[in-house]
Amino acid sequence: MGFERFFGTSAEWIAGRGPRADIVVSTRIRLARNFAGLSFGSRCTPAMKERVLDYGAEMLARAAQFKDGVFLRLSHLTPLQRQLCVERHLISPALIENPEFVGLLLDRGEMASAVLNEEDHLRLQVIRGGFVPQLVWQMIDTLDDDLAAFLPYSFSDRWGYLTACPTNTGTGLRVSVLIHLPALVLTREITKVLRGVGQVDLVVRGFYGEGSDVLGNLFQISNQRTLGISEIALVEKLEKITEEVIQYEERARERLLAGTKRARLEDQVWRAAGELKSARLLTSNEVITLTSVVRLGVSLGLLEGIDLQVLNEIVLQAQPAHLQLTAGRELDAEERDRRRSRSVQEKLADFHL
Amino acid sequence: MGFERFFGTSAEWIAGRGPRADIVVSTRIRLARNFAGLSFGSRCTPAMKERVLDYGAEMLARAAQFKDGVFLRLSHLTPLQRQLCVERHLISPALIENPEFVGLLLDRGEMASAVLNEEDHLRLQVIRGGFVPQLVWQMIDTLDDDLAAFLPYSFSDRWGYLTACPTNTGTGLRVSVLIHLPALVLTREITKVLRGVGQVDLVVRGFYGEGSDVLGNLFQISNQRTLGISEIALVEKLEKITEEVIQYEERARERLLAGTKRARLEDQVWRAAGELKSARLLTSNEVITLTSVVRLGVSLGLLEGIDLQVLNEIVLQAQPAHLQLTAGRELDAEERDRRRSRSVQEKLADFHL
Repeated sequence: MGFERFFGTSAEWIAGRGPRADIVVSTRIRLARNFAGLSFGSRCTPAMKERVLDYGAEMLARAAQFKDGVFLRLSHLTPLQRQLCVERHLISPALIENPEFVGLLLDRGEMASAVLNEEDHLRLQVIRGGFVPQLVWQMIDTLDDDLAAFLPYSFSDRWGYLTACPTNTGTGLRVSVLIHLPALVLTREITKVLRGVGQVDLVVRGFYGEGSDVLGNLFQISNQRTLGISEIALVEKLEKITEEVIQYEERARERLLAGTKRARLEDQVWRAAGELKSARLLTSNEVITLTSVVRLGVSLGLLEGIDLQVLNEIVLQAQPAHLQLTAGRELDAEERDRRRSRSVQEKLADFHL
Repeated sequence: MGFERFFGTSAEWIAGRGPRADIVVSTRIRLARNFAGLSFGSRCTPAMKERVLDYGAEMLARAAQFKDGVFLRLSHLTPLQRQLCVERHLISPALIENPEFVGLLLDRGEMASAVLNEEDHLRLQVIRGGFVPQLVWQMIDTLDDDLAAFLPYSFSDRWGYLTACPTNTGTGLRVSVLIHLPALVLTREITKVLRGVGQVDLVVRGFYGEGSDVLGNLFQISNQRTLGISEIALVEKLEKITEEVIQYEERARERLLAGTKRARLEDQVWRAAGELKSARLLTSNEVITLTSVVRLGVSLGLLEGIDLQVLNEIVLQAQPAHLQLTAGRELDAEERDRRRSRSVQEKLADFHL
């Protein structure tokens, strides 16, 4: 089976090498599609779902992007393996408990993925490291065109692509960036900036937690509308607004570096790195919070010997399913905290305080 | 002048090598003495003080213990140098601002010291690392006998040694231990144990701060009475009660190690070491608090590569006057915090996380 093979490879975005990776962790687009001639949403029967899965898997395998890819039937995976797919943002959490008829196809670099029988017959996703909305759009558009050549989509000339939930109808497109805004949080400008983003039909969410409980200063900006606007217009709008947010964050970082608070910032950055390297029990939330501070330090050049790839790997591997699959068994909370700290220490082995 | 020479030597107690140094940092005895034929306390005139100083310094120099010692006139020192003497527990804080006629004599290992014209004409002190009340008593008793041979003390057959303040009259003896009780604090048994100590005529004080604000889990146990009891009885009483406190602390440590909290304790110990090593700004209070946790870890064998000497040196050198005299100039608070962290890092250079 393909799971270990997939599990062993590293997603492209983890390298932390795309443009503006100092602020934007990753850019993602997903397209919602349904197959013509088959009911979708709640009217899709088990027999139809079986057809979607078989037929979809066969068709998807023909796309160039999925050459040498991995196909996984979620019901053949263990709950922990499915949870790992959630932790890698490949499927939605609801599928851990309801894996029937769901298929997941991945390319080798975990850049493109496809899910069959989620809410829609097909969800395509492309994710790349850094701030690359145009690149991601080109990739997913090419993939979508490839598939459309042999997969007849359910499409209305009036509404566009038809979807199970009307909020996705039209382009079926959701474009998002995962953006790290620690300086705006530190200077307390974040609320103002995010309010501005919300006023132009974009949605901002804490990536971990909401409101004042946002962990790790990580936010996801995405489009709200999918209807009555072209795909490229949606992508360009998100691109333009994100560029502005990046500039705000940059200026806030410059002020932090120039001001009297620089010494305190440097202190916080080093302490966070020290805590990651020294703790013997680490919770998930601590890892998210501490890596955020270190990430800022790395981006500002306050700290050497750690790069963004190491930080991305730390966060990914610190998640419960990743830890338990590495251990080969289920672990209780304290054992997870212990193994999480060991995993972090291994990643930071070449970094010296 | 002798200041730099004295400043360069290291006090014996810093080595952290005496018996039970895992719990008792140091044992100290001081004797209050006045010279016969000269008024003392508030009736001691400047002219008399000058005589105490000249005569006392000459007589003290004859004692074997002070051979090759250093004599310092406090009024010849800078305020920072006097503050350093306070930080090394050689003189009382009041003498920083009122150094007139005060003399300080030190032996080479900073074990024995004598202060002239403090509250009494003469205060003798012996301090040694670890739990050694009998040894300290023998040392100071020998020194006192040596001096009495050529220094006529003010003595009453009825009251004993006469002193400026009646609370010291009789033996003029104050014996104390500086004791580290982190496990009793962690297990919340400290209040009960210290209450027991207070019931047998001994006094317990937080070494840094009082009550719930005690920093670094460091306590000083000392005798209250000085009158109507022999010196050796005072020393033995403190010895006996301290032995009991040590046993309570030992048992609390064993319970911490055996229990389910061991992993959490280990985590705290390593984090504290990590924070000391990684912080770029460190306050005095942080150093006291963090070294206390690390000290417990070292004593319990939870952490290798740091010894008690390093911890004692860290705490000593982290003090404001020590930092400023090392720097060769006065420093503002942030600069002190920065240099304090550097000083700590240097001491921990051989310790790797």
